[in-house]
Amino acid sequence: MTGHPQHAARSWVESANDHPDFSLANLPLGVFSRDGDEPRGGVAIGDRILDLRAACEAGLFLGQALDAAQAASGDSLNAFFALGAPARKALRDALQALLGEGSTQREQLQRMGESLLQPMERCRLHVPARVGDYTDFYVGIHHANNVGKLFRPDNPLLPNYKYVPIGYHGRASTIDVSGATVKRPNGQTLPPGASEPTFGPSKRLDYELELGIWIGPGNSRGEPIPIGRAADHVAGFCLLNDWSARDLQAWEYQPLGPFLSKSFATSVSPWVVTPEALEPFRCAQPARPEGDPQPLPYLYDQGDQQQGALDIELEVLLLTDAMRSKGLAAQRIALSSTRTMYWTVAQMVTHHSVNGCSLQPGDLFGSGTLSGSSPESLGSLLEITQGGKQPLELANGEKRTFLEDGDEIILKARCRRDGYASIGFGECRGRVTAAAGMA
Amino acid sequence: MTGHPQHAARSWVESANDHPDFSLANLPLGVFSRDGDEPRGGVAIGDRILDLRAACEAGLFLGQALDAAQAASGDSLNAFFALGAPARKALRDALQALLGEGSTQREQLQRMGESLLQPMERCRLHVPARVGDYTDFYVGIHHANNVGKLFRPDNPLLPNYKYVPIGYHGRASTIDVSGATVKRPNGQTLPPGASEPTFGPSKRLDYELELGIWIGPGNSRGEPIPIGRAADHVAGFCLLNDWSARDLQAWEYQPLGPFLSKSFATSVSPWVVTPEALEPFRCAQPARPEGDPQPLPYLYDQGDQQQGALDIELEVLLLTDAMRSKGLAAQRIALSSTRTMYWTVAQMVTHHSVNGCSLQPGDLFGSGTLSGSSPESLGSLLEITQGGKQPLELANGEKRTFLEDGDEIILKARCRRDGYASIGFGECRGRVTAAAGMA
Repeated sequence: MTGHPQHAARSWVESANDHPDFSLANLPLGVFSRDGDEPRGGVAIGDRILDLRAACEAGLFLGQALDAAQAASGDSLNAFFALGAPARKALRDALQALLGEGSTQREQLQRMGESLLQPMERCRLHVPARVGDYTDFYVGIHHANNVGKLFRPDNPLLPNYKYVPIGYHGRASTIDVSGATVKRPNGQTLPPGASEPTFGPSKRLDYELELGIWIGPGNSRGEPIPIGRAADHVAGFCLLNDWSARDLQAWEYQPLGPFLSKSFATSVSPWVVTPEALEPFRCAQPARPEGDPQPLPYLYDQGDQQQGALDIELEVLLLTDAMRSKGLAAQRIALSSTRTMYWTVAQMVTHHSVNGCSLQPGDLFGSGTLSGSSPESLGSLLEITQGGKQPLELANGEKRTFLEDGDEIILKARCRRDGYASIGFGECRGRVTAAAGMA
Repeated sequence: MTGHPQHAARSWVESANDHPDFSLANLPLGVFSRDGDEPRGGVAIGDRILDLRAACEAGLFLGQALDAAQAASGDSLNAFFALGAPARKALRDALQALLGEGSTQREQLQRMGESLLQPMERCRLHVPARVGDYTDFYVGIHHANNVGKLFRPDNPLLPNYKYVPIGYHGRASTIDVSGATVKRPNGQTLPPGASEPTFGPSKRLDYELELGIWIGPGNSRGEPIPIGRAADHVAGFCLLNDWSARDLQAWEYQPLGPFLSKSFATSVSPWVVTPEALEPFRCAQPARPEGDPQPLPYLYDQGDQQQGALDIELEVLLLTDAMRSKGLAAQRIALSSTRTMYWTVAQMVTHHSVNGCSLQPGDLFGSGTLSGSSPESLGSLLEITQGGKQPLELANGEKRTFLEDGDEIILKARCRRDGYASIGFGECRGRVTAAAGMA
């Protein structure tokens, strides 16, 4: 065990040990396919995907773990999300026993070879669930401050911000998985100084670095989820890129909020990282400074205040066509953290349902852009370039105010803590392609 | 034929003839169940529902009409919507032949009795499709003006209004069918003069009179629907009540738009009135006054300008507990029309998809509140009472600024034109019940 974190159990799947993302401590779920086969549920372990359907057919699970594995064997994880925490934990325990170094079934499993453990590089990953409703929050307080300053230098945060976990309904039909290209949207914009809008490709295309939250069992209409039970309704986490056309947004968003400026694309990472994997990385809510108002009682739970925040490192990288053609690696353009969330995930869940709105398995939340307070931790080009006024200078000499065709944005996330195996989210990639020609 | 509109073919289903809503000229589709049976598709004819599954099993349809009837036989109309106009028209033609006075199959059908033609009063009606995404527009220009005046007396319409069909994403999970009760939502509000919000039941609960639009085949991501093809993607129409908690809305809506103030409930009428039934009631766009800017080219189609608007009479009735206990009928509180729409349905479809956003069969649009210009034609209490300042006086002596528990709102719609059978939408009803107790 020397040199290994004390809480990091080893696996007989060699690539899992010391894997930066997918060690035995993580075991995120996703939906994959190979060679044009039907998509089905799987679990990431090292450089492999454990095929849950094959595992069920081989009789590897019993009881609640079997229920969970069967529910996760189809072409979406909705049924698995609906089962909630007990079944999810049972599956996790069973998988850790099967895949652990001391597994009694190791030889049987090894004999199954690739029929059980598919090489990840040969598989295609899919959006892990059918998204019923997608809600995008705005809980990154530095982002809210930074964007507010562009419009209201003296009064950046609106009066409701520290009371209401602000959110809005997003578009579910255009959620796609990491790797899908993003076509630059056409739309109406009001050029500077003009009194009439023009129509054409967005000139201010941006990304937003967000945490995605997959919803589990959910609630019936009219029956709010109390804050103390909110965690029971969170199925897992992913990375989310809320692509945004800032020029469309500026022209369209009054009075009802963002619409076409966001609805052309939202990218998510394919792996659903479970609350159990993130357990060691929970922390007290750090972003609410002393002197700020206490949350209203329906949003306040002592356990949530002390353990409801997450300590996940977030990263944004940019790979341009020029870098790609010279064989350069993607350049990091931001390093941030989920510790910048002003509201916890539990507060988001409870607020969303407090009016009686029903949440359903497979609903997706975005956190809103998670920028830090330093210039190196900003989660959008809007903030980095101060609304397009200060270009970002890249290491290869290129400059960017907003995204150009060919630019690829890569989001990453990792949890680190001394004595624990690191937990990675994998990647959320998306490359911008040219706008559709105009008819 | 004396005394009957010249274009109104008669049916051997006697209750259909001269029926104010469901004559042979209408034939709207819906999803119904009886005695706890599985929900399935049907067609309203007089006081009956034609059971499409029974009709298919009896071999009443052939070719495209059979395809359409089979697609509409399940527990939602999504597959039927996906087929588009040719199949929908084939089914309409087949139904008009089968149910017309001169039908050659009349005796066979009459022998089938209630197994084919269920008594509507003994059936339960359901939301007719699984709604993927729900979008609420804001195309009622008088409503936009009236609401704008409450906030900005000198400048009620924002500069984008006459260029952009303003809309926002709504909540799909809380769409319910006419007849479902609406629980008053709890939420945060900022009392007048206060600097901190309080939490409790909404005190300013309101309705909104809207036209609902069901989306048909739809488009692939990244492939906008040109204005000249937009009508191909409209499957039908309904009434829609966009219940709104004005006090929650005022506190939460900056900067991202309405959220919990709307997401607790949206009611729709159960019958999908087809574009074919509404064909005689198309008209030129009347609401865009001379001198207003022309639509940008992507939103302009000459045929749409000349025939793309709809002439549908809209009505709001209120039934209070006091009226109900005295056996009084519901009181009409507004009479309006779809001629108040500043943008056509085709313009809404094309605008929504112009950024590459994919529309899918079963997506639902709301038009936004359709108020007229007169005091008797206002589609919400917010407008009738001028933001709660001028109570509405009811005939029985009651007053309302906003809705009270027990109040029932009934929306109706009808098309009338000399020489044509009238086409009705049926009703969209919803009764307010008390807020959930606070934990």
